Amino acid sequence: MAELLVVGSVALDSVQTPFGKVADALGGSATYFSYAASFFTPVRLVAVVGRDFPRAHLDLLARRGVDLSGLQVSEGMTFRWAGEYGYDLNEAKTLDTRLGVFAEFRPSLPEHFRGTPFLFLANIDPELQYDVLRKVERPRLVALDTMNFWIKGKRRELLRVLAEVDALLVNDAETRMLTEEPNLTKAARTILSYGPRTVVVKRGEYGALMVTDGRFFFAPAFPLESVFDPTGAGDTFAGGFMGVLARAGTVDEGTLRRAIVYGSVMASFTVEDFSLTRLTRLSELEIEDRYRTFREMMRIEQ
Amino acid sequence: MAELLVVGSVALDSVQTPFGKVADALGGSATYFSYAASFFTPVRLVAVVGRDFPRAHLDLLARRGVDLSGLQVSEGMTFRWAGEYGYDLNEAKTLDTRLGVFAEFRPSLPEHFRGTPFLFLANIDPELQYDVLRKVERPRLVALDTMNFWIKGKRRELLRVLAEVDALLVNDAETRMLTEEPNLTKAARTILSYGPRTVVVKRGEYGALMVTDGRFFFAPAFPLESVFDPTGAGDTFAGGFMGVLARAGTVDEGTLRRAIVYGSVMASFTVEDFSLTRLTRLSELEIEDRYRTFREMMRIEQ
Repeated sequence: MAELLVVGSVALDSVQTPFGKVADALGGSATYFSYAASFFTPVRLVAVVGRDFPRAHLDLLARRGVDLSGLQVSEGMTFRWAGEYGYDLNEAKTLDTRLGVFAEFRPSLPEHFRGTPFLFLANIDPELQYDVLRKVERPRLVALDTMNFWIKGKRRELLRVLAEVDALLVNDAETRMLTEEPNLTKAARTILSYGPRTVVVKRGEYGALMVTDGRFFFAPAFPLESVFDPTGAGDTFAGGFMGVLARAGTVDEGTLRRAIVYGSVMASFTVEDFSLTRLTRLSELEIEDRYRTFREMMRIEQ
Repeated sequence: MAELLVVGSVALDSVQTPFGKVADALGGSATYFSYAASFFTPVRLVAVVGRDFPRAHLDLLARRGVDLSGLQVSEGMTFRWAGEYGYDLNEAKTLDTRLGVFAEFRPSLPEHFRGTPFLFLANIDPELQYDVLRKVERPRLVALDTMNFWIKGKRRELLRVLAEVDALLVNDAETRMLTEEPNLTKAARTILSYGPRTVVVKRGEYGALMVTDGRFFFAPAFPLESVFDPTGAGDTFAGGFMGVLARAGTVDEGTLRRAIVYGSVMASFTVEDFSLTRLTRLSELEIEDRYRTFREMMRIEQ
């Protein structure tokens, strides 16, 4: 079992879906990621919050054993995001973004974080992602997430950091945008030529696909009868994925595939309620049970 | 190995895609279906063409051993369809439909067809599908395809025939439209309450899912680097699916799952070229090879 470091955002989300709404609920990429990963391996978090950030939220992560010594508490407001989803729940409409202290975020790594063997660079400015890479000591595996905003606005910086990471996790629209290639198969292969050995494409209700050294692997999404709020699904997926890799300590094709399925399992729980609500009442038994169901749904030979 | 009967259309298609075009090429649901199924089991075809239908097309099916004694040749023009696809290749835009002799099609079964154990009712008027059911003698398995046109225009007739079939094959939009339920998981389960024991939802580039007795199975689509023309993919899928079931002779969960994957294999070849071009130069070796690749792409444990 190896340690896992995440650098990303801790935020307060206000979300409206056809099924209800929440205001200033716990959110952020590093939050979903570390909570999900904590079921599999010890997690270390680097992020920033303002002085307004509720203590109770930190306790939630601390109780999962997440090492919060890299969480900066700065003068100012915590990063706030407000969005809403329509009935198709596939894409959020951003209503408001207030960066607050996140605007000046400069990731700073406590000394004992520098040798962390597994590293996840959540969706932040690719220049900051690159900075973090300069501060760590030869991690065994580095994975990176990004979004359309950086693909459009900081393409050169993104390609620079991509050249140095092992795995890229993106959704299908981002895959096409990054490569300017409409065919997803070609697009995924093209990303391999940018540096990563592995690309994981998240496709929401259609599951995920992974390409490693030219080999494809497909996992479905869990067939949920009601998706309540998709916020955080991608970061939860990444948390399950990286958590399983770090737990294994080594990265081979079999581990990567199990990690993809565990990522899908974790994401399927997150979307069952707002914020981290479902995750906070999740048991290891439920995780293993859903993993078995996934295996059953994908097995050809009976 | 059991015989397989298909009732559907034989047509001449004019298709334009971003990659080229063909005029009056061999098409039709029963054509794609029977050609694909012929790789697995003996096939019997019931359809109608006009006197203008090229002899060479019939020879193509005859050489695959397809029993054409149920093919009516009527005075008038063969059914013609013209359509085009944009770059996303997901939905055809119909440019022209000339029903010709298909407008008066009344399926007539040769005596030796009546006891065929496996029956596929391709996408035709649900009243005709119901008629065919009255003419056959207790088949082991009946599957049915339909489309938005009948769901909207002949809902009552469609539900009547659905109540008597074992399996429904539809795409995701049709599944939602038929059940008036946006959640695909709920929608698929709802269809089971209409009569079928099995529902297969075709999702194009996202693969297929099957629900049988409440159990889900997911298969991806083959990750093609270029899709040339998606016309006939669904009927080819159905041909592979039913062909494998008929070859097995019995229908259990394991056979159904293998059938879904073979259906996906066959469809992945069809879309590599216009009309049946790719199928006509397909070898059993290629089919088995791609089946193994599918198995490899879906297997979690290495």
